[in-house]
Amino acid sequence: MTIYILDLFGVAVFAITGALAAGKKKMDLFGVVVLALATALGGGTLRDVILGAYPVFWISDPTYIFVGTAAAILIFVLARFRRPPAKALMFADAFGLAIFTVIGTEKAISLGVPGSIAVIMGVMTGVAGGIIRDILSGEIPLVLKAEIYAIASLCGAIIFAILTKHFPSMPLPAPAAITIILALRLAAIHWKLSLPVFPSDKK
Amino acid sequence: MTIYILDLFGVAVFAITGALAAGKKKMDLFGVVVLALATALGGGTLRDVILGAYPVFWISDPTYIFVGTAAAILIFVLARFRRPPAKALMFADAFGLAIFTVIGTEKAISLGVPGSIAVIMGVMTGVAGGIIRDILSGEIPLVLKAEIYAIASLCGAIIFAILTKHFPSMPLPAPAAITIILALRLAAIHWKLSLPVFPSDKK
Amino acid sequence: MTIYILDLFGVAVFAITGALAAGKKKMDLFGVVVLALATALGGGTLRDVILGAYPVFWISDPTYIFVGTAAAILIFVLARFRRPPAKALMFADAFGLAIFTVIGTEKAISLGVPGSIAVIMGVMTGVAGGIIRDILSGEIPLVLKAEIYAIASLCGAIIFAILTKHFPSMPLPAPAAITIILALRLAAIHWKLSLPVFPSDKK
Repeated sequence: MTIYILDLFGVAVFAITGALAAGKKKMDLFGVVVLALATALGGGTLRDVILGAYPVFWISDPTYIFVGTAAAILIFVLARFRRPPAKALMFADAFGLAIFTVIGTEKAISLGVPGSIAVIMGVMTGVAGGIIRDILSGEIPLVLKAEIYAIASLCGAIIFAILTKHFPSMPLPAPAAITIILALRLAAIHWKLSLPVFPSDKK
Repeated sequence: MTIYILDLFGVAVFAITGALAAGKKKMDLFGVVVLALATALGGGTLRDVILGAYPVFWISDPTYIFVGTAAAILIFVLARFRRPPAKALMFADAFGLAIFTVIGTEKAISLGVPGSIAVIMGVMTGVAGGIIRDILSGEIPLVLKAEIYAIASLCGAIIFAILTKHFPSMPLPAPAAITIILALRLAAIHWKLSLPVFPSDKK
Repeated sequence: MTIYILDLFGVAVFAITGALAAGKKKMDLFGVVVLALATALGGGTLRDVILGAYPVFWISDPTYIFVGTAAAILIFVLARFRRPPAKALMFADAFGLAIFTVIGTEKAISLGVPGSIAVIMGVMTGVAGGIIRDILSGEIPLVLKAEIYAIASLCGAIIFAILTKHFPSMPLPAPAAITIILALRLAAIHWKLSLPVFPSDKK
């Protein structure tokens, strides 16, 4: 139940980042809602489709659609009065990343796939929505550029998969993984940490 | 049967818009056919994959592939002699949008998903092909910009879902929804109507 | 068994082309691995998802993920010392295209789809990874531009489907199709052959 509410919170946050990206490209209300939903639900949809985990999570529970659409319309209206606070959004986004990663890893493990695949599914749940958002708005996906974002998700997913396997009776995998992801992501934001970049194109 | 023929007409029309978009980017014959098929079949494919409605519609009936490919090759050859009439294409495209939306909504309803999800599936069937076309040809999807296009599809899908639910024994949902979509879309073309745009980036 | 090793070779080669494309866009290590895996596994994933052939090939056998990731990290490290030889890469890529096409066509045939659909699935397996790579790195897919690439895959897939249907007891479809694809592709590289281009935009 707690997880479900956190999940909906993540959907709202990701929908808002999608709506804002749509706004930067001067999309209309429909484009804003589409980009919001693609960002919020894209990662989980890709996960479910690749796992063959039907029905896809938002098909059986339209709450996801309603929350994502409501968040998009709200930001569409509010943005006429004032800009959303960038810092608060980054923190909320880090939280959404953590939640989605854990939920994705958990779902894949519960379907019995190998641990390495479950980790990939967790990261995919966390970051694919943002990649789809960037492609739909004509940008090279930010996640793939030099920044500690996906790697935070990856570390969290690995921790979660290991703890789940070796301490199956304890309730700590989810809080531990969420904490790790948040800590890494917030540290990266604060100290502007980044991964090494591919060394071509020296000229 | 009538619906099947209308469906194939929609496939041909969307294939032509895909082929023309490929032409603008100077793609070769293969690229033209790929873009034509992605535009014509992409929306329905995404719908079937997300619904888990296997086999995907064109796998069990290759007629779709043949019609889409033939339309693409035909326009590829004809374009050497004269430009296709833009106005006629816009009308044909509006008709394809109406047909695809109704077919998509109908299929989702027949699979027993909630009404709100069926509406989304209808809109997805109608507009996702065009979005895929634009992404493959390196453009920001036109559908998401300020124009009454997807919103016409949305209104038609809602009408169709409501009529189907409350008047299940009457044959009018499909003609009514198709009429609504066509009317909205043609009015938008004629009077250049558009949705409100996201208000950021005022400077 | 031989096919499996060739398949993994194709995965490694395609992963390297993905990693190099990521490098050109100055992506970080994570982006490099994502682009490598999307290029190497994207075509087969799309094929399996559209066919509903669950589990998707790399879910049940993580070897694909390991080989793709290892190839990407290797090239990421090696590129600090010297550029990879472009000519060798093109030959290896032609080989990957041939292998993936044959494996994709074969899998679709074994699932009982019509021959024309199996051919499309073969081509999709061969070229979709490269299309996804180009979209993720912000380019118009190279495959769709004027070059004999996908058409080599198409010819090979058709040959394979015909031989499999009419000479089911003979072991020659795979070698014959691979040879055809390699010959066409290498001839195209050597003599810079290309398909006719769409004739619009004369001004």
